Amino acid sequence: MTEIHQPDPAAVIDLLGVLAYGELSAFDRMAHDARMAPSTALRAALAEKAALEMGHYRKLVDRIAELGADPQQAMAPFVMPVETFHARTEPRSWGEALVKAYVGDGLAADFYREIASYVDESTRSLVDEALADSGKAEFAIREVGVLLVQDPKMASPLSLWGRRLVGEAISRSQAVIAEHDHLAGLIVEGTGDLSAIGRLIERITAAHTDRMKALGLNP
Amino acid sequence: MTEIHQPDPAAVIDLLGVLAYGELSAFDRMAHDARMAPSTALRAALAEKAALEMGHYRKLVDRIAELGADPQQAMAPFVMPVETFHARTEPRSWGEALVKAYVGDGLAADFYREIASYVDESTRSLVDEALADSGKAEFAIREVGVLLVQDPKMASPLSLWGRRLVGEAISRSQAVIAEHDHLAGLIVEGTGDLSAIGRLIERITAAHTDRMKALGLNP
Repeated sequence: MTEIHQPDPAAVIDLLGVLAYGELSAFDRMAHDARMAPSTALRAALAEKAALEMGHYRKLVDRIAELGADPQQAMAPFVMPVETFHARTEPRSWGEALVKAYVGDGLAADFYREIASYVDESTRSLVDEALADSGKAEFAIREVGVLLVQDPKMASPLSLWGRRLVGEAISRSQAVIAEHDHLAGLIVEGTGDLSAIGRLIERITAAHTDRMKALGLNP
Repeated sequence: MTEIHQPDPAAVIDLLGVLAYGELSAFDRMAHDARMAPSTALRAALAEKAALEMGHYRKLVDRIAELGADPQQAMAPFVMPVETFHARTEPRSWGEALVKAYVGDGLAADFYREIASYVDESTRSLVDEALADSGKAEFAIREVGVLLVQDPKMASPLSLWGRRLVGEAISRSQAVIAEHDHLAGLIVEGTGDLSAIGRLIERITAAHTDRMKALGLNP
């Protein structure tokens, strides 16, 4: 008889809390970054992607309430680290905004999916739904392609920007895990040991490399 | 035999163009104003209302394309007046943001509905849908009520703010009509004569008065 693994309920609330605040914050930042678009059509395209994040936010917050926790309290511990990540990776151009929308969100999605693989089935499918790409990848790949044709010299600074995003994302995630025992416990329990966290980061950086190549940039 | 009135197709495109840009701009401004909310829950509530504007935007833009016009070109003449309205009515507090979300949008909706009453049925119902309130009124009335209970002295500056919004909205609308012959023609044709524009403004200010009272403010 196999033992059915029940994840720590507090860890599930932490996971949903950081994700929910991440969605609200992604909405906010993408809505802001859309202003840098070179045309009204592209501005609207990024604004539409931002708007979709609020649908994900609603589902995550409803789930937190369903589990008997307060969504505001669940999000509160993650406001500062998420805002710090965004403050340190504020795009200064349309190209940087596009790379961040794709690469930054891709990194966050990979990280959350890894953690979600250790929780119950229904939480996992909600997380997967919230992290659905909604066409951001295709949009960013196409529009970064347009920029690189117009000005091939942008490949070098945008590649550097991608490396900065991955560096910030990893150091912010490590800080979040270090400060949240429930989440750390979930990962250690799920992976078996702490050395597995190294392999987790390896998988995430491998997926990041693929995204940078898809954009035509150097990983 | 009654003559079936066919509105000027260029006027319909103008109407849809100003409305579409208005929605994109409302999204942008409300997403930005949401940052002033006193809690994450209220911030998310305004962000969710902002996100709904993008659904309206999409329908208006699709309709412009259906009618054989280019959405970007249709919006272009209205970017400046809409942005000027927002730049002159930038909320400096959560209370001002709430009053603007309700009173400002209400004014715009009344104005567009008046004009839409002179166009064809299918355009009119699309405009009505785009202008659907989506719960903003209820939200603003409740939250302004909370602010006035906490600090009754805010009634006076917020009432002044409402008067500034209506003044700016009317002067911006008049400028837009004066500069766009198709729209002006639509109104003159629809109302019968130029003096009817005075009555139109009277109806709009009467509805504004009702909204200010609903907020517990002096019109």
